[in-house]
Amino acid sequence: MTKVVLNHGAGGEAMQEFLSKHIICHFPKVKTDVPLDSMDDSAVVDGIVFTIDGHTVKPLFFPGGDLGRISVSGTVNDIAVMGGTPLALGCSTIIEEGLDTDIVDRVMSSAGRTCQECGVPIETGDTKVVEAGAVDQMFMATSAVGRRSEYLDANFAKAKEYRTVTGNWCTDSNIAPGDAIIVSGYVGDHGIALMSFREGYGFESEVQSDVAPLNMMIEKALKAGGIVTMKDSTRGGLANTLNELASKSGVDIEVDYQSIPLRDGVVNACDLLGIDPLSIGNEGKCVVSCVPEMADEVLKALRSTPEGRDASLIGYAGKGNGRVMLRTEVGGRRILEPPIGDPVPRIC
Amino acid sequence: MTKVVLNHGAGGEAMQEFLSKHIICHFPKVKTDVPLDSMDDSAVVDGIVFTIDGHTVKPLFFPGGDLGRISVSGTVNDIAVMGGTPLALGCSTIIEEGLDTDIVDRVMSSAGRTCQECGVPIETGDTKVVEAGAVDQMFMATSAVGRRSEYLDANFAKAKEYRTVTGNWCTDSNIAPGDAIIVSGYVGDHGIALMSFREGYGFESEVQSDVAPLNMMIEKALKAGGIVTMKDSTRGGLANTLNELASKSGVDIEVDYQSIPLRDGVVNACDLLGIDPLSIGNEGKCVVSCVPEMADEVLKALRSTPEGRDASLIGYAGKGNGRVMLRTEVGGRRILEPPIGDPVPRIC
Repeated sequence: MTKVVLNHGAGGEAMQEFLSKHIICHFPKVKTDVPLDSMDDSAVVDGIVFTIDGHTVKPLFFPGGDLGRISVSGTVNDIAVMGGTPLALGCSTIIEEGLDTDIVDRVMSSAGRTCQECGVPIETGDTKVVEAGAVDQMFMATSAVGRRSEYLDANFAKAKEYRTVTGNWCTDSNIAPGDAIIVSGYVGDHGIALMSFREGYGFESEVQSDVAPLNMMIEKALKAGGIVTMKDSTRGGLANTLNELASKSGVDIEVDYQSIPLRDGVVNACDLLGIDPLSIGNEGKCVVSCVPEMADEVLKALRSTPEGRDASLIGYAGKGNGRVMLRTEVGGRRILEPPIGDPVPRIC
Repeated sequence: MTKVVLNHGAGGEAMQEFLSKHIICHFPKVKTDVPLDSMDDSAVVDGIVFTIDGHTVKPLFFPGGDLGRISVSGTVNDIAVMGGTPLALGCSTIIEEGLDTDIVDRVMSSAGRTCQECGVPIETGDTKVVEAGAVDQMFMATSAVGRRSEYLDANFAKAKEYRTVTGNWCTDSNIAPGDAIIVSGYVGDHGIALMSFREGYGFESEVQSDVAPLNMMIEKALKAGGIVTMKDSTRGGLANTLNELASKSGVDIEVDYQSIPLRDGVVNACDLLGIDPLSIGNEGKCVVSCVPEMADEVLKALRSTPEGRDASLIGYAGKGNGRVMLRTEVGGRRILEPPIGDPVPRIC
């Protein structure tokens, strides 16, 4: 008899296999614009962009964020990266008996402030309380619905001035050889801030979680035009995101390590801990791919926003079959493997 | 410093107060067709019916159902009772490290079969695995989106042949004096089946959970017409549902105990355990209120379906201010108080 292990929920290859073998295979298949088995950040059903995420982050409060902020931001971002404008959130909270009500208040008021910040209200919810020991303090699942962004048609029209684009939403499979690969800012901050704070390493004084809603930034980027896909870079970090994009689009992607925004604090912490900064989850960063002719415009639009001010062009897609190549600091090239899972448990 | 207690999530008055004081107060207020603070079964946002529910039922498998079936059914029912046609589900699963994968398979295949049964696919999802001890086996939060039922306009038009109806969806506040109160079948089955199985009382041989999707039954009832509201009768049972309806509609409701479908097994178990069968949660029953002139038609439609074959007219609304009166077995009348919370923990 096989047992569930932590890596089955850690965003990498082990999770993909677990989902295929034990979750998605049991659900009826249906045809919609963006169905479940495409494993995109959101589904699109009858024009409604729709997503759900469970949040089990530990601890509830960490440098730069908390359970409430991560729950709202992560779900809003999943709608936005599909090319959707988020309309409303749903919030299901599971609380352990005996938890101080002021902890509930702090999490919920942070969720409420994040709603204000991104302009997306919580419209429906559910609260369960379970006996002590049945849940670790408090978990939150958030769901969101959205509409097609008013800028999405013009965005794709702009891309089509330069090449054929078959997709109608910003799905993972849209990248073609030649497309530019952009990351919206520093990567690895969330994972290092969280792990360091939890384990007491002390790096969290320099590195704060990047958790933030990205819908305003993404709207500006779509207005620039020429984007073919976007993807929230969470569990498994940039390495996982790039591998998923390359594999689903059937291209190779080559990125340049020197161009990837990485803080010294993140690099130092990763060196000491023996982990790869490109495999650590983010909570306020996305990868954007656009036709190369529009890369400057998209970068400019991203950099005009607070969330995207450190956006960087990190590489290009080429012909291939789903590999990600990394041009290293010393000028060599190596394959950037998809991580088995995120090295930081309970990251989100 | 106050602490969270089980009754804060048990569906009764204590939960209403907890939600107002510690959850909803922190969220920005917005105007939509059916907003969060109306505390209806679903919200309606820009024509999208939208809901979310966390499921922490214990044990995962019980007589008549399991976590997968309850998660799909409960969420589909929340859309349907609002007058919505459910389109798609989202499923967020949180699993404890070390759980047998065949338990995951059994829960997920049951969820998949329930999707087939009600014709609503799971279109988006998320899976987290947490370390042993951080969650009791497996929790599931489900979300759903729906559209306005194609029968809802004609249904309200039929009601308006007899009286003014201001609401445009089947919200809790729609009942007027004179309206008929119908329950769709036997109440208390789920709570007794679950508690008896869990505690080893032995009543579960006679009483099985009623957990089922009700969207097909509700569609037939709406086709009959004249319905003003419907409500899923879960935590806190019929007593809670009737009190919420009376209070939000600003009417009194009088129901006749003799007309309420109650199995002998449920009554006997409740007598022995000293609990009120009207305060125990159901997972496949709803209260339907319609203009009295259409009560026979609505009953006939409900009874023509397997889920509604035992539907019963249990009373009427009258002028008042939110009380529920119960005509007792011996012919007396007493106030049916809203329960503080459901007497069975982890019922859903």
